[in-house]
Amino acid sequence: MRYLVNMCYDGTDYYGFQIQKDMKTIQGDVERILSKILNENINIVGCSRTDKGVHANDYYFHFETFKEFDLGKLTKSLNSLLDDSIYIKNIKEVDNEFHARYSVKDKEYLYVINTGEYCPTRRNIELEYNKCIDVELLKEASKYLIGKHDFKSFTSDNERDNFVRTINYIKFEEKNEILNIYINADGFLKYMVRNIVGLFLELNDGKKNLTDIEKILESKDRTMLGVCAPSVGLYLNKVNY
Amino acid sequence: MRYLVNMCYDGTDYYGFQIQKDMKTIQGDVERILSKILNENINIVGCSRTDKGVHANDYYFHFETFKEFDLGKLTKSLNSLLDDSIYIKNIKEVDNEFHARYSVKDKEYLYVINTGEYCPTRRNIELEYNKCIDVELLKEASKYLIGKHDFKSFTSDNERDNFVRTINYIKFEEKNEILNIYINADGFLKYMVRNIVGLFLELNDGKKNLTDIEKILESKDRTMLGVCAPSVGLYLNKVNY
Repeated sequence: MRYLVNMCYDGTDYYGFQIQKDMKTIQGDVERILSKILNENINIVGCSRTDKGVHANDYYFHFETFKEFDLGKLTKSLNSLLDDSIYIKNIKEVDNEFHARYSVKDKEYLYVINTGEYCPTRRNIELEYNKCIDVELLKEASKYLIGKHDFKSFTSDNERDNFVRTINYIKFEEKNEILNIYINADGFLKYMVRNIVGLFLELNDGKKNLTDIEKILESKDRTMLGVCAPSVGLYLNKVNY
Repeated sequence: MRYLVNMCYDGTDYYGFQIQKDMKTIQGDVERILSKILNENINIVGCSRTDKGVHANDYYFHFETFKEFDLGKLTKSLNSLLDDSIYIKNIKEVDNEFHARYSVKDKEYLYVINTGEYCPTRRNIELEYNKCIDVELLKEASKYLIGKHDFKSFTSDNERDNFVRTINYIKFEEKNEILNIYINADGFLKYMVRNIVGLFLELNDGKKNLTDIEKILESKDRTMLGVCAPSVGLYLNKVNY
């Protein structure tokens, strides 16, 4: 039987989702606890990689087992044994054709920026930019990025053939000096959101101009961009199947 | 010269404000760094104690020195040397009659409760109650507490003579499944806010009734209350001079 699990996590103390030897990872922790509860070696398949320090409000993975169990009880057992940084929302049975990664239609990332005064209590869950942001400028910039483009300049991953992705929307929401940026696409390249936000901040700082964006896209050269935005403000926010 | 410093902090990793031997405290950290920068043994006088794990959005302390320095530069030096959990907002010169603790007119505490689903990323800055709260019931309960009362039942501190305090207001603000409770008083006893919130939660859970509140106040007996609410959701939010 195949099961789909929905969870959320605080990525602050993790070296990302994907399992790595001798590193604390989300996949590593979940597989260890799930295998312990089911008394069977379980491998999980995640909907996406997330980088070191990146959070998830909505994450899915699937796993397979022939063991029988109560879905509610397994959810409770996982939550009682996993660290407080990981929370299992629910588990449901799915068809064998359903795949946590390949069945994804699109995903939304959220990037949270504090444009007000430095906030110690939220420093691990938002970017402490602590300066005003010209949201109208960022909206103009988004027009160049929305749609189907080759985003090779927006990733440091050179090991793939296809860098074409479709950004469905980039939305901005401002309240109480917090700027939330929502980016939805059919797929994301490594560091793509952080590089887009990095570009936004360089535009705001006057280090880049709107007219640079087409050149950056056309160049297919990562070095045309400045620094990518830190992982601390990034959340995998919604996964749509 | 006497200087008044305004700061905020994330209390998660601290054993409260007040200095304690071999413990990480806000006062201990600030005195150490301030003494290092001014090259002089500095003692600071805080506006209030805060318990282990309690946060502050608005905290004041004063200190004295005959050294001359630039206020802006000292602010920057402190922020660069203090942990990320503490942030100095500003420093100003005050009269020698001004006292960070004795000059306080009233203070506002904020208690933040998540009434929605467990949130890993906010678990250190709000109480994960994760159940609905009947805010109308809490508003009714507040009517018994607002005003001048002997709050001996609401503290575990037995070493003082006067337990009379005046609560000026208790306000409730709900948004996105977060309940913010604001309590303003001319002074607070140890654990007073956490005991009030603890009572609120027991009322909501049906473990206490509105008619119990007068009895609790009259009893002057802490054992009439249930458990006090955890420190994690508590913030010293505003200090008025």
